[in-house]
Amino acid sequence: MINAVIIGASGYTGAELIRLLSNHSKVKIAALVAESNAGKKADELYSHLYGAGLPDLVTFDEVDFTGVDVAFCCLPHATTHNIAKRIPESVVIIDLSADFRIDDATTYEAWYAVPHTAAELQANAVYGLTEHARDAVRRARLIACPGCYPTSMLLPLLPLLRQKIISGEGIIVDAKSGITGAGRGAKTANLFTEVNDSVRPYGIGGHRHVAEVEQELSKVAGEAVQISFTPQVVPMNRGILSCIYATFLGGKTIKEARKALTDAYRDDPFVVVLPEGKTPQTRDVMGSNQCRIALFEDRVAGRIIVLSVIDNLVKGASGQAVQNMNIRFGFSEAEGLESLALFP
Amino acid sequence: MINAVIIGASGYTGAELIRLLSNHSKVKIAALVAESNAGKKADELYSHLYGAGLPDLVTFDEVDFTGVDVAFCCLPHATTHNIAKRIPESVVIIDLSADFRIDDATTYEAWYAVPHTAAELQANAVYGLTEHARDAVRRARLIACPGCYPTSMLLPLLPLLRQKIISGEGIIVDAKSGITGAGRGAKTANLFTEVNDSVRPYGIGGHRHVAEVEQELSKVAGEAVQISFTPQVVPMNRGILSCIYATFLGGKTIKEARKALTDAYRDDPFVVVLPEGKTPQTRDVMGSNQCRIALFEDRVAGRIIVLSVIDNLVKGASGQAVQNMNIRFGFSEAEGLESLALFP
Amino acid sequence: MINAVIIGASGYTGAELIRLLSNHSKVKIAALVAESNAGKKADELYSHLYGAGLPDLVTFDEVDFTGVDVAFCCLPHATTHNIAKRIPESVVIIDLSADFRIDDATTYEAWYAVPHTAAELQANAVYGLTEHARDAVRRARLIACPGCYPTSMLLPLLPLLRQKIISGEGIIVDAKSGITGAGRGAKTANLFTEVNDSVRPYGIGGHRHVAEVEQELSKVAGEAVQISFTPQVVPMNRGILSCIYATFLGGKTIKEARKALTDAYRDDPFVVVLPEGKTPQTRDVMGSNQCRIALFEDRVAGRIIVLSVIDNLVKGASGQAVQNMNIRFGFSEAEGLESLALFP
Amino acid sequence: MINAVIIGASGYTGAELIRLLSNHSKVKIAALVAESNAGKKADELYSHLYGAGLPDLVTFDEVDFTGVDVAFCCLPHATTHNIAKRIPESVVIIDLSADFRIDDATTYEAWYAVPHTAAELQANAVYGLTEHARDAVRRARLIACPGCYPTSMLLPLLPLLRQKIISGEGIIVDAKSGITGAGRGAKTANLFTEVNDSVRPYGIGGHRHVAEVEQELSKVAGEAVQISFTPQVVPMNRGILSCIYATFLGGKTIKEARKALTDAYRDDPFVVVLPEGKTPQTRDVMGSNQCRIALFEDRVAGRIIVLSVIDNLVKGASGQAVQNMNIRFGFSEAEGLESLALFP
Repeated sequence: MINAVIIGASGYTGAELIRLLSNHSKVKIAALVAESNAGKKADELYSHLYGAGLPDLVTFDEVDFTGVDVAFCCLPHATTHNIAKRIPESVVIIDLSADFRIDDATTYEAWYAVPHTAAELQANAVYGLTEHARDAVRRARLIACPGCYPTSMLLPLLPLLRQKIISGEGIIVDAKSGITGAGRGAKTANLFTEVNDSVRPYGIGGHRHVAEVEQELSKVAGEAVQISFTPQVVPMNRGILSCIYATFLGGKTIKEARKALTDAYRDDPFVVVLPEGKTPQTRDVMGSNQCRIALFEDRVAGRIIVLSVIDNLVKGASGQAVQNMNIRFGFSEAEGLESLALFP
Repeated sequence: MINAVIIGASGYTGAELIRLLSNHSKVKIAALVAESNAGKKADELYSHLYGAGLPDLVTFDEVDFTGVDVAFCCLPHATTHNIAKRIPESVVIIDLSADFRIDDATTYEAWYAVPHTAAELQANAVYGLTEHARDAVRRARLIACPGCYPTSMLLPLLPLLRQKIISGEGIIVDAKSGITGAGRGAKTANLFTEVNDSVRPYGIGGHRHVAEVEQELSKVAGEAVQISFTPQVVPMNRGILSCIYATFLGGKTIKEARKALTDAYRDDPFVVVLPEGKTPQTRDVMGSNQCRIALFEDRVAGRIIVLSVIDNLVKGASGQAVQNMNIRFGFSEAEGLESLALFP
Repeated sequence: MINAVIIGASGYTGAELIRLLSNHSKVKIAALVAESNAGKKADELYSHLYGAGLPDLVTFDEVDFTGVDVAFCCLPHATTHNIAKRIPESVVIIDLSADFRIDDATTYEAWYAVPHTAAELQANAVYGLTEHARDAVRRARLIACPGCYPTSMLLPLLPLLRQKIISGEGIIVDAKSGITGAGRGAKTANLFTEVNDSVRPYGIGGHRHVAEVEQELSKVAGEAVQISFTPQVVPMNRGILSCIYATFLGGKTIKEARKALTDAYRDDPFVVVLPEGKTPQTRDVMGSNQCRIALFEDRVAGRIIVLSVIDNLVKGASGQAVQNMNIRFGFSEAEGLESLALFP
Repeated sequence: MINAVIIGASGYTGAELIRLLSNHSKVKIAALVAESNAGKKADELYSHLYGAGLPDLVTFDEVDFTGVDVAFCCLPHATTHNIAKRIPESVVIIDLSADFRIDDATTYEAWYAVPHTAAELQANAVYGLTEHARDAVRRARLIACPGCYPTSMLLPLLPLLRQKIISGEGIIVDAKSGITGAGRGAKTANLFTEVNDSVRPYGIGGHRHVAEVEQELSKVAGEAVQISFTPQVVPMNRGILSCIYATFLGGKTIKEARKALTDAYRDDPFVVVLPEGKTPQTRDVMGSNQCRIALFEDRVAGRIIVLSVIDNLVKGASGQAVQNMNIRFGFSEAEGLESLALFP
């Protein structure tokens, strides 16, 4: 048994960690940190947690880190680097913000508009896209879990680029997300009345998640890759569907694309490459840690369409965080993450 | 480990049983029966089940019952009694239809408009409202799981009537249900387009679930109890909220009502009586086997308002079925049912 | 042509007035008042209004009331009475808040927790439940439009009580509302994530709308009437369904109840008493000014179930306001309100 | 006043025509045709139509075409050409199916898998994308209204291709639609339970609407244009959002693109080119006949992103049909179509 602290327990990824860790046989939740809600009971923030036997919320300063093995940081972007420095070195940090995903401090500051205050931690952080980072995760002090959109794009794109199946040029990603991706902040635009019965694009050509995606794609492509990315909010709580449009590199075929992906993820419990003819939908993975990928040859010669679905709060956030924890602490990789999707 | 067969695996309660049993450490799904879909793979009916390692669908006649311990019947009302007779006697039957809930064959025929063809099974069936039937469930050959609406009403009402806190006269139940309660049949009225953005009452003054509720209430009241019942469909998949309006028996108070319920369910893992001031919503129990109950003194003197929420597919159907199985086979009552609700 | 000013144009009832008045052949929108949004264009608040040819938002003090015939007040409860005093006397006031609905200042202060500062206006205000107040509306300086829940209850209940068909004792109203009823304020509880897939009761036994309902019911009953009232939020934008449970007065029947209502509303364009066997749903009136009512004899002898649906933003707010304006200014009562419901 | 017949009145586009024509001062609905529902009242199919004063449903053979000016055909694809031949020649036909959209019979048969039986009508049919076909519409016997997806794509793409702003190669359209686009047929996949809380791609690389889009694009481009097209269903009733990705032709800029579109639609009441920085959502046009278009320069040099929203049942079907009728019969083009969108 290890002891875990959740810092930023009042947001949706914090609540999802509570759900997943409550199902985990090897983890005890030692503390729930939520500065502005400190002193409250967990069920005052989340009524479904009534009776779940959780500790009350505390401030960061109230946490006794003695015996704590891992801290999950579920704080907003650009605040985590200030907190992370204050966590004792003996504690493994699994961060769900963007603060440690970007290798280069200048790039970070360009996209997130604040100077990074924990450069030494950033330098040693591991980008925790689990299936592509197991060795590094196993030894990491700080694991930066990828963003939700990036996870849904990188899992299909990395093997295709690495195997030179598709071109790094002209990749277009049209992504649709449930509204939990926007967090629990009280904003008019996210009221039920405003989200219901509508599809709403936002951040056209400039979403911050592009930074980490291009960073990771460029690494495997061996050259600078730039993508077109259009995120959209749809009226549902959970789920991301990324539709990826790309061109085959000289002569490559859908068959080779499928082989590249099935080979890459043959032994992975959570990445499912669908057989020909199957089309994924976001409900297929609601509440589950799976990423499902489907490949289609386009009618337009030389083009491929890749569809990828995840639950943004699970494989796109808290589930991948637990998966990384499992690897880091030598547990079975799927421990606590094996539930089937909730349907209907 | 016991072996389970699910008969009627193509409906929503069948799919929910698959989800719950997949999480259960003591049960192996030996066969999935679905007459008209026999020969298909489970994921051809439910895409989220792709890769879940389930057996293909078969007809009832194809099932080898050797070594099978329990059969869950998830068939429509009025067809189960024909199938149940054909299940070997060594197999425990846990039925989710209404066919064995009504003690009296004449009453059954009056409400369900068909003669009962398995009277001997009916005579020995146990009405499996778990918290009120553990002893009988432990020894039962056939357990008739209560309907979803009845579960949400009976759990709060039985202790209040038994303790003479409220009157058996003038009980009014206004209930709202997610649309999964209507099953997976392809009906125009249940299309997304028709259910979305609307609340729709139906079966005013004549829903069949009234029969079993009045049967059980009359038993504890010691006299014939009749209720007013108005079911409504709301645009959500899962959940039932029953608002129950009743009158206190001479001088009884909200305090005594709360005490009666907390006493009745003190040691029950799945019935939660909320403290004063807390109001339940259906999301609190989405995907969970809990029933949450809240009690309010009305502004109108002498009246009480009782709110009760369940997930109709879990505590209202497949979850209660697994709970009964746990008791029947000597497992821990909560085994496989301990997950927190999915929120958000 | 008359000139109208909308005060409180940034809320949902303000936006709905804009929609309805844009369809009205006899009204020009002269000014849109929204203190904290003054200076903005209408489509900065409501993107669908882009290009609709509306005036920019202004403060109250910036309005030139010369030539203005009518002012719609769409402000929160307890702030309207301060503004109303400052509107020139030549301008007819149609108020959508609760501030002028309660005849008695003490009762108002008890429910709304502030002293009333415009007692003389209150004394002369007309409670504008149109079908029951046409003569008074025709001459009124200030028309207080009923609340949304009250409209849905009073339309069916007033004739039944006046004709002594039902008892004033033991009336129970279980009401479900779309979330627009909560307004556009940015509250966590009203985020899409929190409202989606759930039914949520609130304000059990103490919703403020009870005050005006009991006031009006008591008037026609000739004695103090108290009701049980349970409001609930369902995941939809618009619509209210009130399920009303009552008892027949000695020997009265469903036939007499139906006759009382059809007689009462025979010539009314917006109150539809459904024939036997028809059940209303809220979608039937989405975007329309109709109130639809259905009557059912309960299985329990001597009891009646009344269902009533409205669109809370139309007949429950802005539509009734326009209907009152039509009567007040001598236009056809249905002018600008004749569109069919939007379905699907 | 002209007399209109709606053939296929039981589907959603038929119901939407009823809504729009009821608002139209120059049209009387003379007959509603629905073969399998003949004999029923309109409100037996659509409860919101109760009391709307509509004729009962009849078979085609029961229609007396004397005095009828226009027939709207709202029948499924591949059945309309059989019916259209039987409509008297004096009657203008406005068809909402795909049967007369494709100029070339061979292409039609390739996509719709049936031989065309009304080749002479097809030869003279006008493709009624109103803003690009007014002259032809004015004189047409048969107007083939474009599909919903095609309308949303063609309105932005035609001027851009005609003005040589963008290349005809490499156009990618990622489109999201409300579920009304699937019609009212009772299919399991379209149940509320299955559509709710999910995004579902379908018909990848092979949707039939591609045929008419490529036909029209090729005409203005002067060469064969092929597009990549991915349709998706989102959990809402109405609305289409098309995200269009294209490349600028040598040196062309976003400024020139915006000018081309604003010039093209300067005087059109229903095509709104949004100013820089505004992003449309589908709710902006719910219930309205508008198409809203926004243009964005991509981060990737030389690329443009075009967003386009319509209500699939209005500008994408019945609204455009009425707009065409208005032009054909010399009414004001916007008559009956001027209502603002319904929001919230």
